[in-house]
Amino acid sequence: MNQNDLLNTTSATYSDAKQDMANMLESRPANYSLPQPFYNDPQFFRADMEEVFQKEWLFVGMTSEVPERGDYFTVEIGQNPVLIVRDADGSVNAFHNTCRHRGSRVCTEHRGKVANLVCPYHQWTYDLKGNLLFAGTEMGEGFDMKQHGLKKAHTKTAGGFIFICLGKEAPQGDFDQFLETLEEYMEPYDVENTKLAVESNMYEKANWKLVLENNRECYHCAGSHPELLNTLLEWDDTNDPRASEEFKALVAEQAADWDAEGIPHEHKSFGPGLRNRIVRMPLKKGTKVMTIDGESGCSKLLGRIKNPHMGSMRILHLPNSWNHMQSDHFIVFRVLPISAQESLVTTKWFVHKDAVEGVDYDPARLRQVWDATNDQDRILGEENQLGINSVGYQPGPYSETFEFGIINFMEWYSSTVQKNLKG
Amino acid sequence: MNQNDLLNTTSATYSDAKQDMANMLESRPANYSLPQPFYNDPQFFRADMEEVFQKEWLFVGMTSEVPERGDYFTVEIGQNPVLIVRDADGSVNAFHNTCRHRGSRVCTEHRGKVANLVCPYHQWTYDLKGNLLFAGTEMGEGFDMKQHGLKKAHTKTAGGFIFICLGKEAPQGDFDQFLETLEEYMEPYDVENTKLAVESNMYEKANWKLVLENNRECYHCAGSHPELLNTLLEWDDTNDPRASEEFKALVAEQAADWDAEGIPHEHKSFGPGLRNRIVRMPLKKGTKVMTIDGESGCSKLLGRIKNPHMGSMRILHLPNSWNHMQSDHFIVFRVLPISAQESLVTTKWFVHKDAVEGVDYDPARLRQVWDATNDQDRILGEENQLGINSVGYQPGPYSETFEFGIINFMEWYSSTVQKNLKG
Amino acid sequence: MNQNDLLNTTSATYSDAKQDMANMLESRPANYSLPQPFYNDPQFFRADMEEVFQKEWLFVGMTSEVPERGDYFTVEIGQNPVLIVRDADGSVNAFHNTCRHRGSRVCTEHRGKVANLVCPYHQWTYDLKGNLLFAGTEMGEGFDMKQHGLKKAHTKTAGGFIFICLGKEAPQGDFDQFLETLEEYMEPYDVENTKLAVESNMYEKANWKLVLENNRECYHCAGSHPELLNTLLEWDDTNDPRASEEFKALVAEQAADWDAEGIPHEHKSFGPGLRNRIVRMPLKKGTKVMTIDGESGCSKLLGRIKNPHMGSMRILHLPNSWNHMQSDHFIVFRVLPISAQESLVTTKWFVHKDAVEGVDYDPARLRQVWDATNDQDRILGEENQLGINSVGYQPGPYSETFEFGIINFMEWYSSTVQKNLKG
Repeated sequence: MNQNDLLNTTSATYSDAKQDMANMLESRPANYSLPQPFYNDPQFFRADMEEVFQKEWLFVGMTSEVPERGDYFTVEIGQNPVLIVRDADGSVNAFHNTCRHRGSRVCTEHRGKVANLVCPYHQWTYDLKGNLLFAGTEMGEGFDMKQHGLKKAHTKTAGGFIFICLGKEAPQGDFDQFLETLEEYMEPYDVENTKLAVESNMYEKANWKLVLENNRECYHCAGSHPELLNTLLEWDDTNDPRASEEFKALVAEQAADWDAEGIPHEHKSFGPGLRNRIVRMPLKKGTKVMTIDGESGCSKLLGRIKNPHMGSMRILHLPNSWNHMQSDHFIVFRVLPISAQESLVTTKWFVHKDAVEGVDYDPARLRQVWDATNDQDRILGEENQLGINSVGYQPGPYSETFEFGIINFMEWYSSTVQKNLKG
Repeated sequence: MNQNDLLNTTSATYSDAKQDMANMLESRPANYSLPQPFYNDPQFFRADMEEVFQKEWLFVGMTSEVPERGDYFTVEIGQNPVLIVRDADGSVNAFHNTCRHRGSRVCTEHRGKVANLVCPYHQWTYDLKGNLLFAGTEMGEGFDMKQHGLKKAHTKTAGGFIFICLGKEAPQGDFDQFLETLEEYMEPYDVENTKLAVESNMYEKANWKLVLENNRECYHCAGSHPELLNTLLEWDDTNDPRASEEFKALVAEQAADWDAEGIPHEHKSFGPGLRNRIVRMPLKKGTKVMTIDGESGCSKLLGRIKNPHMGSMRILHLPNSWNHMQSDHFIVFRVLPISAQESLVTTKWFVHKDAVEGVDYDPARLRQVWDATNDQDRILGEENQLGINSVGYQPGPYSETFEFGIINFMEWYSSTVQKNLKG
Repeated sequence: MNQNDLLNTTSATYSDAKQDMANMLESRPANYSLPQPFYNDPQFFRADMEEVFQKEWLFVGMTSEVPERGDYFTVEIGQNPVLIVRDADGSVNAFHNTCRHRGSRVCTEHRGKVANLVCPYHQWTYDLKGNLLFAGTEMGEGFDMKQHGLKKAHTKTAGGFIFICLGKEAPQGDFDQFLETLEEYMEPYDVENTKLAVESNMYEKANWKLVLENNRECYHCAGSHPELLNTLLEWDDTNDPRASEEFKALVAEQAADWDAEGIPHEHKSFGPGLRNRIVRMPLKKGTKVMTIDGESGCSKLLGRIKNPHMGSMRILHLPNSWNHMQSDHFIVFRVLPISAQESLVTTKWFVHKDAVEGVDYDPARLRQVWDATNDQDRILGEENQLGINSVGYQPGPYSETFEFGIINFMEWYSSTVQKNLKG
């Protein structure tokens, strides 16, 4: 993006932009890509941040990233720094990472371990529940420590997943039902006894929705992802209009094994556009996990899993996460918008906490397939962005056969933005 | 430019900016540089893009850059990617380089050769005339391939020059007369039998109009361009108010030779402000071409040319090109705006297609003079921009004797913007 | 800052922004940090530039930086290039560094020495008082050289300090009284017989007010500045609410010495919020100057000074300078805003003009303490900015005991902006 694009906004003011956005969503044809400003207009991006990323539940990480009291990590939701920390009674909490004195970031590292949360500027000190413990010696008579704790973000965890919400009130709906299902489906993995093996952070010059659109279809896989297709089957699930009889037979065969082992696998989805969705699908016959050759990635299986052929349990959480849960490691993906034409894609690989690097697993082998795939997707996303920026761009048709996943994503996005703009 | 300058715009909204622009042009004194916002206001820049670069004919390159069927090159007009390709019947066509499916760029390289145009995202395939040949297997019943061809840009070629126009309708006026003249004047060069020898792309932190203003006068040459002045005579043509009797005699002497050889040279111009202009002028007595010593740059003369003393045929095309056609090589210049304070200047040197690099010509020798000159002009343009950005800047007087070329450029720019803003 | 933050402005238009700014200042609680947009909104930043930095007196440098006729240095006030030059009769003048022909910067180097000021573009030539001497040979009959001199900025010097004002009219008030005091207090240092020993330019990703706020309190010093606290006493002066009896005794003891030597030291202040302020304070007992060990930094004392225990004469000039005048060298600090979230902090160390580098002083030793301190402050400022950018930021309380200096700064800032917005 060049700097002058910033003023090439469709709408005269931000207030107009929100109205234009609502009107365009109202009248959009369901099976077409969105009008240009949704992908590159900075005022539309601002509305995405305020109406989606600052109001909806977001995936930020796994509870096993903060295994003990005082362990924390930080994340930036747009320009909002957030701090996730495990407290003394084992709860995981999220706080705005901004001191109540003069606003400095309190935790300046990406990860760490602390006794209390101490602002580096003037040593204002908060406990792990965000209560202000110390604020210098002379803040004056009227100063009330209780009114100056760190500001909380809503936090919920289930099955090891941490979700936060920056809005004043967290959206209700069926999110809790999804969390119950997530708890049940993740039980075999025993996430609390896993550990982060390796993490990648990829910067992509594309609007966050293009990153999601790319993820929501495998129509492009054959042309772009040779490493991934060593193990991944391109069908979304048995409802996929392209699903072959052979595929359905494979699903039935493996499902019988999984049922025998008490491993959940059936498709469950929640919210408009399958916003939250879980399903376990087989990998290519004969392969175990998403490594370059389909052989195991870690010699210790996760949790109570005995069978290396777990396929991949796919977990979708719109707007910002997809995940692959396998027998010996799992992979989580998180998308964070940076600007109208910039996103950050974080990928993390988890293994059993007792697995030993260099003995039980090789981080380079674990990350190989998705490093390649992510980079291929990054180039596709960036080229998509460049073409969309043109006056020659015109919304084009999604294939109901190949791109139903995007149609679903757009249904969720559209209904959510419309609801929040009204709200 | 720092990022906050972006909001330092003169006008509250883009709509106001266009009105302010029209008013300022209406009341401008003809012989003075423009008010500050024309050079640094992002909303004025947006209007330059929409009213000039997206509506007027632009020079993009030479037909000999795409000698055979399927040869293409790409160019970015602002944020609009464009694709220029030679088709099966030998025509050169320009298309918006954006797929009609989800908008990805179709050709992602700067130059290449293809059988068909295949989008890298989902392999939608277009023929060299832009017709959609393949769009996946299941786009649904209602999908009409004929409605999903690549979008065309207007394209015209003459004398080897390729011009495109991104506007809905291409401007009429006397452009075709210019093209006829160009065809006639370029005939001796036989451009189809030339080849691109070397290309430079220079990034300049200055508004595109400052790049053009710099080009439109040689008042600064004596102080800045020692290499160029080894061969270039500073007079624009024999109408130049500074033209000496000695110069006029030299012109007359060479013109006699050129006439004898049937080589066109007389001044022809078209459009307001000499928008399109051709004239052949001698180089310094005793020099052949714009090399550092004035000796030949390539041992094969171009086309039907026999006399190495062809001087330089200067071809101007506003808003974005000037060119020097000589006996053994020619040089074309193309300016593309990037932002209010950023431009890209592309220079290309062409030789006979049978000339052999390292035998008949040395690319380093060919480019030496204009590499130096371009870089000197870049610094002048960037310093000009920095001073104009100041609250201390006030439009200053152009000299009618030395800077008539800028006065002409401004006449064209002003009348074109006013016409298009009204239109 | 990411690029899209630019449109995340609080106000629909710049005109609204100025009104919003006035309203927020009107209703602000005096002892709280400012609302977010004062620190990161590009339209508020524009108002800071137009209402403060383009209207108020600014510190730019010392007269001994331009010791002789034709010596100059340049400085950028936002995007306004300014030129400071010593003329033939010994005066120091400031000019807009933009040619009256087509606006190029005239002086393109940071420092230099010239006979006349010659624009590099077309050699327009100005004398050292800014009068146009030469403008090409044929500017036409109507051209009046007298109307095309360089535009002056208001300039005042006192005690070796150079102040400029870019406004049409320079603010009156008690600035001249401050200058008289500055002249008197600086007399012992004989600035004209000093020289610039070393200069640092530090880029900081923080709003200029955060740089000033950081400077206006030493509440953070104990946690961040070990090198500085080898010599600096944290108390502002004897009126500091934290000042100990021991400190007051030290002040009294040294003041007696200074009085005996005729060295001014008493606190003087001018303008709202102690805008201009001078006071001499002792350094830590036993230390002489702000070096890493408190021993001397240069073997030649400045001016008429005989006693190495001069402490530090602190000179504050809002909005953009603080300074430490010591026995054997002095240090000046200048802050220049670049954008809403970017500033440039320049630090210069001066010694006696006869001191010999490598013999009398070591530049690396001179700069060591403040290089470390500046960098520590830079990180504090940048972390402060990042936290303030959050939706979780809320103005927080300043301590009247520890942060009275910021409360004063805000009083000056608020009253100045309100006055100038009205004016």
